[in-house]
Amino acid sequence: MDHKEMLEMLNGVKEGAISPDDALTRLKTAPFEDIGYAKIDNHRGIRQGVPEVIYGMGKTAGQICGIVDRMLENGAKDIIVTRLSEEAAASLEKQCRLEYHPIPKFGIVNRDSVRDKTGSIIVASGGTSDMAVCEEAALTAEALGNQVTRLYDVGVAGLHRLLSHLEILASARVVIAVAGMEGALPSVIGGLVSCPVIAVPTSVGYGANLGGIAALLSMLNSCASGVSVVNIDNGFGAGFLASRINQMEGVK
Amino acid sequence: MDHKEMLEMLNGVKEGAISPDDALTRLKTAPFEDIGYAKIDNHRGIRQGVPEVIYGMGKTAGQICGIVDRMLENGAKDIIVTRLSEEAAASLEKQCRLEYHPIPKFGIVNRDSVRDKTGSIIVASGGTSDMAVCEEAALTAEALGNQVTRLYDVGVAGLHRLLSHLEILASARVVIAVAGMEGALPSVIGGLVSCPVIAVPTSVGYGANLGGIAALLSMLNSCASGVSVVNIDNGFGAGFLASRINQMEGVK
Amino acid sequence: MDHKEMLEMLNGVKEGAISPDDALTRLKTAPFEDIGYAKIDNHRGIRQGVPEVIYGMGKTAGQICGIVDRMLENGAKDIIVTRLSEEAAASLEKQCRLEYHPIPKFGIVNRDSVRDKTGSIIVASGGTSDMAVCEEAALTAEALGNQVTRLYDVGVAGLHRLLSHLEILASARVVIAVAGMEGALPSVIGGLVSCPVIAVPTSVGYGANLGGIAALLSMLNSCASGVSVVNIDNGFGAGFLASRINQMEGVK
Amino acid sequence: MDHKEMLEMLNGVKEGAISPDDALTRLKTAPFEDIGYAKIDNHRGIRQGVPEVIYGMGKTAGQICGIVDRMLENGAKDIIVTRLSEEAAASLEKQCRLEYHPIPKFGIVNRDSVRDKTGSIIVASGGTSDMAVCEEAALTAEALGNQVTRLYDVGVAGLHRLLSHLEILASARVVIAVAGMEGALPSVIGGLVSCPVIAVPTSVGYGANLGGIAALLSMLNSCASGVSVVNIDNGFGAGFLASRINQMEGVK
Amino acid sequence: MDHKEMLEMLNGVKEGAISPDDALTRLKTAPFEDIGYAKIDNHRGIRQGVPEVIYGMGKTAGQICGIVDRMLENGAKDIIVTRLSEEAAASLEKQCRLEYHPIPKFGIVNRDSVRDKTGSIIVASGGTSDMAVCEEAALTAEALGNQVTRLYDVGVAGLHRLLSHLEILASARVVIAVAGMEGALPSVIGGLVSCPVIAVPTSVGYGANLGGIAALLSMLNSCASGVSVVNIDNGFGAGFLASRINQMEGVK
Amino acid sequence: MDHKEMLEMLNGVKEGAISPDDALTRLKTAPFEDIGYAKIDNHRGIRQGVPEVIYGMGKTAGQICGIVDRMLENGAKDIIVTRLSEEAAASLEKQCRLEYHPIPKFGIVNRDSVRDKTGSIIVASGGTSDMAVCEEAALTAEALGNQVTRLYDVGVAGLHRLLSHLEILASARVVIAVAGMEGALPSVIGGLVSCPVIAVPTSVGYGANLGGIAALLSMLNSCASGVSVVNIDNGFGAGFLASRINQMEGVK
Amino acid sequence: MDHKEMLEMLNGVKEGAISPDDALTRLKTAPFEDIGYAKIDNHRGIRQGVPEVIYGMGKTAGQICGIVDRMLENGAKDIIVTRLSEEAAASLEKQCRLEYHPIPKFGIVNRDSVRDKTGSIIVASGGTSDMAVCEEAALTAEALGNQVTRLYDVGVAGLHRLLSHLEILASARVVIAVAGMEGALPSVIGGLVSCPVIAVPTSVGYGANLGGIAALLSMLNSCASGVSVVNIDNGFGAGFLASRINQMEGVK
Amino acid sequence: MDHKEMLEMLNGVKEGAISPDDALTRLKTAPFEDIGYAKIDNHRGIRQGVPEVIYGMGKTAGQICGIVDRMLENGAKDIIVTRLSEEAAASLEKQCRLEYHPIPKFGIVNRDSVRDKTGSIIVASGGTSDMAVCEEAALTAEALGNQVTRLYDVGVAGLHRLLSHLEILASARVVIAVAGMEGALPSVIGGLVSCPVIAVPTSVGYGANLGGIAALLSMLNSCASGVSVVNIDNGFGAGFLASRINQMEGVK
Repeated sequence: MDHKEMLEMLNGVKEGAISPDDALTRLKTAPFEDIGYAKIDNHRGIRQGVPEVIYGMGKTAGQICGIVDRMLENGAKDIIVTRLSEEAAASLEKQCRLEYHPIPKFGIVNRDSVRDKTGSIIVASGGTSDMAVCEEAALTAEALGNQVTRLYDVGVAGLHRLLSHLEILASARVVIAVAGMEGALPSVIGGLVSCPVIAVPTSVGYGANLGGIAALLSMLNSCASGVSVVNIDNGFGAGFLASRINQMEGVK
Repeated sequence: MDHKEMLEMLNGVKEGAISPDDALTRLKTAPFEDIGYAKIDNHRGIRQGVPEVIYGMGKTAGQICGIVDRMLENGAKDIIVTRLSEEAAASLEKQCRLEYHPIPKFGIVNRDSVRDKTGSIIVASGGTSDMAVCEEAALTAEALGNQVTRLYDVGVAGLHRLLSHLEILASARVVIAVAGMEGALPSVIGGLVSCPVIAVPTSVGYGANLGGIAALLSMLNSCASGVSVVNIDNGFGAGFLASRINQMEGVK
Repeated sequence: MDHKEMLEMLNGVKEGAISPDDALTRLKTAPFEDIGYAKIDNHRGIRQGVPEVIYGMGKTAGQICGIVDRMLENGAKDIIVTRLSEEAAASLEKQCRLEYHPIPKFGIVNRDSVRDKTGSIIVASGGTSDMAVCEEAALTAEALGNQVTRLYDVGVAGLHRLLSHLEILASARVVIAVAGMEGALPSVIGGLVSCPVIAVPTSVGYGANLGGIAALLSMLNSCASGVSVVNIDNGFGAGFLASRINQMEGVK
Repeated sequence: MDHKEMLEMLNGVKEGAISPDDALTRLKTAPFEDIGYAKIDNHRGIRQGVPEVIYGMGKTAGQICGIVDRMLENGAKDIIVTRLSEEAAASLEKQCRLEYHPIPKFGIVNRDSVRDKTGSIIVASGGTSDMAVCEEAALTAEALGNQVTRLYDVGVAGLHRLLSHLEILASARVVIAVAGMEGALPSVIGGLVSCPVIAVPTSVGYGANLGGIAALLSMLNSCASGVSVVNIDNGFGAGFLASRINQMEGVK
Repeated sequence: MDHKEMLEMLNGVKEGAISPDDALTRLKTAPFEDIGYAKIDNHRGIRQGVPEVIYGMGKTAGQICGIVDRMLENGAKDIIVTRLSEEAAASLEKQCRLEYHPIPKFGIVNRDSVRDKTGSIIVASGGTSDMAVCEEAALTAEALGNQVTRLYDVGVAGLHRLLSHLEILASARVVIAVAGMEGALPSVIGGLVSCPVIAVPTSVGYGANLGGIAALLSMLNSCASGVSVVNIDNGFGAGFLASRINQMEGVK
Repeated sequence: MDHKEMLEMLNGVKEGAISPDDALTRLKTAPFEDIGYAKIDNHRGIRQGVPEVIYGMGKTAGQICGIVDRMLENGAKDIIVTRLSEEAAASLEKQCRLEYHPIPKFGIVNRDSVRDKTGSIIVASGGTSDMAVCEEAALTAEALGNQVTRLYDVGVAGLHRLLSHLEILASARVVIAVAGMEGALPSVIGGLVSCPVIAVPTSVGYGANLGGIAALLSMLNSCASGVSVVNIDNGFGAGFLASRINQMEGVK
Repeated sequence: MDHKEMLEMLNGVKEGAISPDDALTRLKTAPFEDIGYAKIDNHRGIRQGVPEVIYGMGKTAGQICGIVDRMLENGAKDIIVTRLSEEAAASLEKQCRLEYHPIPKFGIVNRDSVRDKTGSIIVASGGTSDMAVCEEAALTAEALGNQVTRLYDVGVAGLHRLLSHLEILASARVVIAVAGMEGALPSVIGGLVSCPVIAVPTSVGYGANLGGIAALLSMLNSCASGVSVVNIDNGFGAGFLASRINQMEGVK
Repeated sequence: MDHKEMLEMLNGVKEGAISPDDALTRLKTAPFEDIGYAKIDNHRGIRQGVPEVIYGMGKTAGQICGIVDRMLENGAKDIIVTRLSEEAAASLEKQCRLEYHPIPKFGIVNRDSVRDKTGSIIVASGGTSDMAVCEEAALTAEALGNQVTRLYDVGVAGLHRLLSHLEILASARVVIAVAGMEGALPSVIGGLVSCPVIAVPTSVGYGANLGGIAALLSMLNSCASGVSVVNIDNGFGAGFLASRINQMEGVK
C-alpha cells in the first residue's frame, strides 16, 4: 500500500465507506501466504517487477513442489527454480510444465513464451570449466526477457581470443564476466568497455584457489572501474542484476 | 582506432594517401603519454566516457602533480583524485584549481561547473562512522554528473529510520548501501527496492569485523537479489559504477 | 556437597557419627559413574537443573546405548540425544522408550509427559533451508519445558513477513534467531524487541559463506544490542540457553 | 503505535476527531530526530527500556557532543558513551555532567543517582590484562541498574583461584566470563553454574591469538552448555545483555 | 603477425596485391578455432613453442575428445592432457593414440617418439606420498623434450638421504622440489645448488597443513634465494616452467 | 660415522689398512636402502633410538608391504605403521606378524613382547569422541616401551571428573592432553601438574571448530606454562615425543 | 592439601584437636593472595617447582611493582618478568634488585646467584633477526638453573653451518629451535637428534609469513618426530618447558 | 670439498703428505666465519656464484656494519644489502663505499664497476605505486650483472599500454611481473611471451587485498603456463632468480 492508497483508504474510513476494523485488517494483511515451511511473497512481482525465485538447494522435492503449486494458483509465470536437482526436477515435471536445463540445474515453470527479449547482455567466461555458472547467468537473464550473447573460453592467458571480440563487447549494455582460477577476466574487460561489468568468481581450480576465494579477492581488488562482484558461483545473482540494469529506462 | 577507421586508413594506403610506414606508426601509436613513472591514458575519455581517475595513495605529491599537469595540458576537466592526503592537496592547490573535501580525502581538479546533474542515486549508510566512505561515493557520483541523495544513519538496528524513507528509496535509479559491522543494510534495502543496489562494506568496527571482512562476506551472501559488492571502503568504485548505471540510456 | 553439608559431615566426624575414613571416601567420591569410554555425570541434574545431554556425533550406537542405559538405571527422564543418526536411533529404540525427530536427528529418551511448558521462546528463521537447525533449537527448548513459537522463513529480504509478526515478537521472553547466508536476521530482530536474542548462524549457503563463517561474523558484529551468538548450526546450544533464560525467576 | 492505538486513531478518523491528513502524518512520523550526521532514536527508551547508547569510536568530539545535547533536551538520563577518548571526554565535560572512567574509556552523562541496583551479575576475568574489557562490562551493567560483583584474575591455569569462589558464582543470576589467550574460562565456569554465561573474548595475547580470534573460536566451541558469545573486546555488549537477562521478571 | 609481416602486408595493400578488405580480414582473423564450448588456440605452438595443453578437470569426456580431435586435424603432436580421469582416458583411447599414466592421471596424445631429450631437470620429493605430483611434473618435462632425473623420498627429516645425492643435484640445470607437510625441501635444496629451484607444495598431510597451504606458505617464505613457487599440487606447471628454463639458449 | 670413527678410519688409510677408494666409499655410503619409491633409513634406530615409523596414509598397500619387508630383512622389531587402512592391514597380515588396532588404524609388525614398560605417561581426553586420537597416542607410547594410563572423558565442562584424579595426574612424568572443541583441557591440566604437557588438538566438533583449528589455536595460546602442541589429530607424534621425554635419564 | 594431610586433619577433628570450623576454613583457604587487580599464587613454587612468572605486557608499571612487592614479602627468589618495557624496568629498579636484559625485555628480580646450572639445553636459531626470541628462551632457561648453549644463525639455507655443529647438537638433552620465515629449522634438527625438540616460530619475515603463521604451520606439520611447538615469539614458554624436561629425574 | 678433492686428500693421507689430524681438521672446517650474532658464509660465492646477501630488516646498524666489515676483509665485491634503513645506510657510508637507493632501501657496497651487463630482463609493473618493489628487483638484477628494461604502469585495466610494448616483451629472456590489487599482470604477460615469468605480488591496495594476499593467490592460480611466484613485496628474490635464469648457459 503506497502513500496515495493509504490516504484514499483513510478518506474511505472518514466517509464511512470502510469500517475501522476493515481498515485495520487491510493495514495488517501481509502480502504473502504462509504454508508452514515457507511464506510465499505474492506481491514481489508488484514490488520488484519479478516473481519470487525459488532457491532449490536445501529444500526437499516436496517443499519445492508445494511452493510452486501455490505460486501457480496465484497465476505466476516464468517461475525460476535454481539449484534444482535432477530428482526434484523429475518430481516437479509430474505436476506442472517445466523447462529444465541439467548443466546449471536450472528450471523454469510455466514459461511465458510470448515475452520479448530486449537490450544486450554479454556473458563472457575464462574457460570451458566455468560453463555451468555461465549458463545459470545466461538462462536467468533470458528468462527475465533479456537478449543474451555467450562469449565463452576467452580467458586472459590467450588475449587474442578476447580482443577479436571487441566489437561485440562494445555493443553490450551489461557484461557478466565469469572466471575461476586467477579471476582476471573482469579486470581486463572492465578496461575495455564503458558499461557496467558484473564479476562472478567460480570455484573452478584447485589448491590455492581456496574454493573460489582467490578469484573473488582478485575481482574485489580489480584495478578497473565499473566492476562489482557477486558471490562465488552465483550465476543467478549476476543474471538477475544484469537484467535489472539492462532493462533500465533512459535517464532524464 | 575502430573497425571503420582502420578500413579508411587501409584505403588511404591503397590510394597512396598514406605511406605504409605512416600506417604502421599509426597502428602502433599508443593512446597514452609516457612520463616515466606513469603512462597517462589520454583516450580513456573517448573509450570509457570518463577521464582517467588518479588513485592518490602510494603516490608522492610530486607524482600526482606531474600527472595532473599533463592531463590539464590535454584539456581534461573534472579530474578526480581519490585518497589525496592534505599535504598533497596543498601542493596541488599551488599549481591548479582544486576543490578539496578533507573527510574522504577527495579532490577535483578543474571542476566544470556547467555540467548538469541527472537521474537519481541514493547513498544510504548504516551509521555516522561510515561517513567518509559515503562521501567518497557521493562526491564521485556528483563529479560525474549525477543527482545524489544522502540517507545516513539508517542502520538495521533501528528499522523505522529506514522505513520512514521508503518513498525516497523507491524513487532511486541506483542505491549505494554503505555499512560496516554486520553489513546487513544492503540486504534489507535490496528487498525493498527494484533498482540495482551497490553494496560497500566499510572497515568500521572492531574485533571479529576483521577490518571489514565480516561486512564484505555478509554482503556477498546477501539473500536479496539485485545486490553486488565492491571492495571494502571503496566509495569511489561504488560512485563510479552507480554513475554508469544511472546514466544509461533506455533499453530498446 | 555444598558448604552446609560439608560442615554437617565434619560435625558428624567430631561427634563420632562418621569415621574419618568414611568422611574421606565421601569427600573423594566423584559424582559420576565411570563406564570406561565415558564418565556419566549423575549429579548434573542437581548441579545445573538439567540431566546430562548426550552429543551423538562421533559416538558409536553401542556407546550411546550404554550411556543411556546407565542414566535410566539412575532414574533419569527426558534424556536428550542430539545428532543421533537414524541407525543409532534404531538401536536405541529396541532398548528404551525413544521419541525421535529425523530432520534435526534429535531424540528424547523416557519422555516425562506431565511436565508443563512455561514462558515464551520464539524461534525465528531466515529461510526454509534453515529448518533442521531451528527444529533442534525448538525441540530442545520444548523438551526442557518451555513454550515455543515457530516463526519460519521471515528473512530480511522480505521485511514485511517479519514486520507482520511484531506483536508475536513483542510477547517473547527470549528470541532464537536462526539464519544462514548473510546472517542479518538477529540484527534486525535485535532492534525490534527488548528481550535477549540468541543468534544461531547456519552453514546454509555456498561460496563465500565459508560453511557458515560469514553468518557467524555478521552476527558477532551485530549493531543491535542484546544479541549473543552460539556456534554454527548449534540449535541445541541455543535451545538450552534460551530455556535457562526463559525459566529465570524474577529479579528482586 | 501499537494495535490498540492504531484502532483508536482510526476510530478518531471515523468520528471526525482526527483528519485523514493528520492521521497520515502520525502514521508516517518517525520516532527519531534527524540532525544530519545522525538520526537520534528518541523512542528507544520506550521500545527497548534503555535510552540509545552512543558508540564513540569513529565519531568526532563535535558529533558526540551534538548527539548528547539533543538527548539531554529530550530529558534522557544515564546516557552511556562507550569508547570515548580522553579528548572527547574533555570536550563533553564542558557541556554537561559527565562521569568518566579512563581505563575502559567509558562515560555516563547525566547520571541518575537514585536508581537502585538489583539482582546479581558476576564479571569474571582470566587475567589482570583483561581489566579494561571487564570494566566496560561491569560499568555498563551498573549504569543500567544491576548489582555487579567483580572476580578478576581467576584464569584456568590456577584453578584453585576460581574454585575458592564457587559460592559467589553459585549466587549469580548471570556470569560474564572475560578471557584472552586460550579463552577457556567460560567453558570451565559454564560447567560449574546453572545460570546463563556470556563469554567475552579479548584481544589480549600475541602471535597465534590472532587479535582475539583464538579466544573467540574457543568460546564458540565451548563444550559447556548455557554459554553464548559476543564480539571480541565487546564489554559493553556483554554488560547490556547481562542486564536484560538479570532484570527479567519471573516466568509464569 | 609480427612487425615484419605487418609491414609486408601493408606494402601488399599499397601495391594492390592485397585488397583492403582482405587485409582487414587478416588483421582480424583470430588465431584460434571456435568449437562452441572452447576456443582452440592453434597458434600457441608458434607463439609459445608448445601446443595448447588441455586441463582435463571439469571437462566432460566428450569435450576433451572434441578438443583433441580438432587439434589432431591441425597436425598437433605431443598433446598433453592433465587431470585426465580414467573414464575420459578410456573414451579418448578409442579415438586416438593415447599414452596414459594413471597415477598422475596424465595423458599424451599422438606422442612424437623421435624427439630428443636435452639438458637436465631433477625432480626431488620429500616423501613417497608426493609421488603423483612428482610424476605429473616429470612426465610433463619429458613430454616437452627434457632429460629428467627422479630423486624421491629425500625429505629433510633424514638429511643424509639428500646429502648423499649432492653430485646429482649439482649437475642439474633446474630442480623441481616437491613437498607436502612442512614444505622445507626447497629451502634446503635452494641452499645447496646454484640453479633455479621451482617449489611445488602438495596437499599431502592432515590437520594444520590446511590442504597444502602450510607447505605453500613455507615455500613462499623460503630463506634460500633462487626459489619460486607454483600452485599446490601443480606438477604440470612446474614441469612446464622447468622445461622453459632448461631449454634456454646461452646468454650473450 | 662420528668424530672418533672418522679419525680411526683415516688412521687406517694412513697405515694402509684401508684403501683410499674404500674410505671414499665408506664416507659416501648412505645409511639407507633405496627401493625406488622409498629410501629406508636403516640407521635411524642407531641415530634416534627408534626404528623408522611408516606413515600409512597416501601409500598403497603394496608400498607399505614392500617397506615392511625390507625392514624385517634388516631385523627390525616393533615396526609401527600409523594410519593403516583395514585393507592394507589385511594385505600386511598375510606377509608378516601384525598386531592391528582398528579404531586408531594402528599396526605394529613383529612385536617384541619381552620389552619392559617404564615410567609413567598419562593420556587424558576431553570426551569420548576423541578416543581414536588418544588410542593412537597411547598405543604408540606403549609400543615404544612406556607405561601408559588412560584418563578419558575428563573435559573441562565437568571439572570434578578431572579433579577426582589429581593424584594420578601428580604421578605422571608426562601428560598427553587430547581435546577437540574449545581445547581447554591442556591449559587446565598444565596448571595442575609439574611435568611436561603435550597438547593434541582433535578435529572433533563442527562449525567454528574449523576442523580442529579452534582447539589448536586455543592450545597454542595456553596461559599455562609447560605446554607444547603437536598437529591436529597427531596422536602418534604426541606418543612418540612423550616416550622420548619419559625415557630420559636423570640430569647430572 | 594432599590425601595424607586431609586424613590427618580429619583425625584431628575427630580427636578434638581441630574444630570443625577451623577445618572448614583450612579446606577453603585459597593458596593465593588477592591484591585486587591480581591474585598472587604463592603456592605455585610448591605445586610446580617454579615461582609464579609475571607476564609484563598489558600491565602497568604500578601493577607489576605491586605484584613483585608481595612476592618479595613472601620470600620469592628469581622472579621472572617477561615483556617488561624499559619504562617499567626503570620503575622496578627503584624498588628492588633487578637484572634487566633489554633485547628480549626480560627481567629477573632478586636473583639467587648460588643456584647451579645443570643439564644441557641448546637454543638454535635460523637467523640473526630471531635473536630476541632466542634470548628470551635462553635467559628463561638459565634463570631456572639450566646450562644453555647458544647456536645462532644456522638456518637451513646454509646447511653446512648447522652440520658443523652436529656434535654439540648430539650432546643436548633438549633443543629449542627458533625460526621465522619458512620455519624449517626444527624439522631438520628433529631428524638429526634423539632428544625432544621444542619449536618456536617467530614473526620475523614479511608478506606471506602472516606475522609468523607461516613458520607456525610449517613447524606443526614437521615431518620429523619428536618435535612440538609453542606460540609465535614465545621464547619464555620454550625456555620454561625445556627446563622442565632437562631437569627430569631418570626413569625407573 | 667435492668428490675429486676428497679423493686427492685421502691419497695425500695415504702417502703421508697430510697427517690424519690435518685431514680431520680440513674435513671439519666450516666454510663460514662466526662473529657471534652471525655466521658469515664466505664460500657462498664459490658454491652459488653470488656472495652472501644481507637482509637488513631486523638487524641493527652495528650488526650490518660488522657483517659488511668481515666480508670486505675477505675481498667481497658488489655486496647487496636489502631493506637497509636510511639510518643504517648513513652508518654504513662512514665505513665503506656505499651506493644507496632510498626508494627500495637498497644498498650496494664496494660496487665493482667493470662488470658487464648481459642478457635481457624486463621488469613490468601494474601501477606507479608498485615502484619500490620493482626497483628492488631491477637494482638487484643490475647489481648481479644483468641488462634490465623497466616497463612501468602497464596494468591490465588499460591493456593498450601493455600491448604497445609487445616487441620489447618478446625480446626478454625473463620477465618479472610486479602487481598489487588484483594481480592479473603476470597472467596476461604469461600468455604473450615464451620465456619464464616471475610474478611478484605487492601489498599495494586496501580492504580485501589483505596486505597482498589477494594478488598472491591470483598469481598462484594463474591460468597462464610458465609463471611462478615469489613472496609478497620480494623484489630482491625476483631479481636474484631472474639473474640465475638470464645468465644460464645454452642447453646441450
